[in-house]
Amino acid sequence: MKKITVIGGGTGTFVVLSGLKNYGLDLGVIVSMMDSGGSTGRLRDQLGVLPPGDLRQALLALSDAPILWRRLFLYRFQNGDLDGHNFGNLFLSALEKVSKNYEEVIKSASYVLKTKGTVIPVTFEKTHLAVEYQSGEIVKREGNIDTNYNEKSRIKREYLEPQVKANPQAVSRVLESDYIIIGPGDLYTSIVPTLLVDGMKEALIKTKAKLIYILNLMTKSGQTTNYKATDHLKDISSYFGKIPHFVIVNNGQIPKDIIEWYKREDEHVVQNDLDSSNYKGKVIVNDVVDRNKFDKSEGDKFVDPLVRSILRHNSKKLAGVLVKIIT
Amino acid sequence: MKKITVIGGGTGTFVVLSGLKNYGLDLGVIVSMMDSGGSTGRLRDQLGVLPPGDLRQALLALSDAPILWRRLFLYRFQNGDLDGHNFGNLFLSALEKVSKNYEEVIKSASYVLKTKGTVIPVTFEKTHLAVEYQSGEIVKREGNIDTNYNEKSRIKREYLEPQVKANPQAVSRVLESDYIIIGPGDLYTSIVPTLLVDGMKEALIKTKAKLIYILNLMTKSGQTTNYKATDHLKDISSYFGKIPHFVIVNNGQIPKDIIEWYKREDEHVVQNDLDSSNYKGKVIVNDVVDRNKFDKSEGDKFVDPLVRSILRHNSKKLAGVLVKIIT
Repeated sequence: MKKITVIGGGTGTFVVLSGLKNYGLDLGVIVSMMDSGGSTGRLRDQLGVLPPGDLRQALLALSDAPILWRRLFLYRFQNGDLDGHNFGNLFLSALEKVSKNYEEVIKSASYVLKTKGTVIPVTFEKTHLAVEYQSGEIVKREGNIDTNYNEKSRIKREYLEPQVKANPQAVSRVLESDYIIIGPGDLYTSIVPTLLVDGMKEALIKTKAKLIYILNLMTKSGQTTNYKATDHLKDISSYFGKIPHFVIVNNGQIPKDIIEWYKREDEHVVQNDLDSSNYKGKVIVNDVVDRNKFDKSEGDKFVDPLVRSILRHNSKKLAGVLVKIIT
Repeated sequence: MKKITVIGGGTGTFVVLSGLKNYGLDLGVIVSMMDSGGSTGRLRDQLGVLPPGDLRQALLALSDAPILWRRLFLYRFQNGDLDGHNFGNLFLSALEKVSKNYEEVIKSASYVLKTKGTVIPVTFEKTHLAVEYQSGEIVKREGNIDTNYNEKSRIKREYLEPQVKANPQAVSRVLESDYIIIGPGDLYTSIVPTLLVDGMKEALIKTKAKLIYILNLMTKSGQTTNYKATDHLKDISSYFGKIPHFVIVNNGQIPKDIIEWYKREDEHVVQNDLDSSNYKGKVIVNDVVDRNKFDKSEGDKFVDPLVRSILRHNSKKLAGVLVKIIT
């Protein structure tokens, strides 16, 4: 059976995994462990645990548990001491406190959530992200980088503080994979972070796996402001050590009101400027967008309601395109 | 198969259930829903949930889940926003928020904890305890009554605010039982409260079940100060509407240092003053004490570390005596 591995964290990874989990693939996910915002950030700071947020999303995406369990793990407390904390995060944090090691945490959580596939934290060591902008300014911690919307300067480099080593299981998974999927997701807070861990870039250079990159639908202010497809690819290639073999680009129509909503945030549809002169891989253009507006006020049963994006890839459409490449 | 039902809440009930669960009995527990102290009280006040603390203990006592799960459900956070909250309480509270009704909460929690036996909340309605002392003073809420150590006056009556109806399953369980076990446990914060709910006393009067009362080892300041066995029985009988058929009294030696510890709190070994002139039922005198000191600073893997008592019944010895009566 072909080994498929998704790398990242956050909502984009959730969408890819949810779509692929029903195809009976040997599916794995290597999860970013650099989240520091919101509930996750408070738990890191106050309890000294590893960041549970991205892991929870990956576990849930692959979960075959009854809907009630998935609702429970997404439930966010809304009052008192627990205000803003997500139950899934509390579960992983408490489990970490009573477990021998983090492998046991993943094993127990995968068991209770009936996870189909392998969830692999990219590292078991504690670290934080930092970026240096072209202006020379430095911003530390994922939560701060993620919300640095007004930044006009481009990110010059991203690094970890402290530098940490990859989970050996993440390295061997990369080496053994047939296909590695990256994106969609925030370039510098969900995708690149996993590549900064010692051993990951080397494994990606060495692996014979084909790399599939799913281009983001929208730019993100302060992180990929005015980025076109080539800008995304350039950054990805530099951190991954190789150019993706495939790029999946959406050509499905995006509802006007959603485009207007993003415009107010100075965020725009990512322009596809790829051609044979600037990219030698295969560009797959398809309708992969979800035209539902993900309204945060109403919440969303399956994706964390605090996520800022209201536009997403459609997990079924995306899985359809991916499975054609893979099989 | 004989139907055995334990009524109460707290550590005493935990000890009885843990001992009996391995005898293959048709075992049930009717749980007090009046707790208002600590983590449970904060969750009630802040989230408007039913009190999870006693339920959690009952579910855990009957749990056949791996030790890791039991450790997880007992885990108490020790820093930050979550300081003092017990994971099991958070689990039940979040589950209540995402479930259709509380039956679903119990069902899901029993499933994940592999509970052997039936856990029945005495009511699904929200209420608080209140006591009136002989001095005329009134104290409200379980947490306050429990910690009113300096009270010298006896409790004249205990009542609920507001008055609530019994869970119909609790009533039918009482009616169908062959044996009902009450105690050990704090008389006015763990035992009597379940009897104040509309329908419970009537069911207890009506049932043909034999009533077994396990006498407390120690008096409790402000609640049963200077109580002897007959004082306990008198209060129990008045709230239960009948005199217990059996009373189990400890005659095992209690280590001196434990007695000294309690003495400092003005708490003493309950004197057995029962004789044929003041009690017509059967008194079973046996060594049922656990001579381990339950040191709270070290914590205790299976019982909530915040419990104040350091002396307990021994669950195996107690189960041995109970099973002889029952079978």
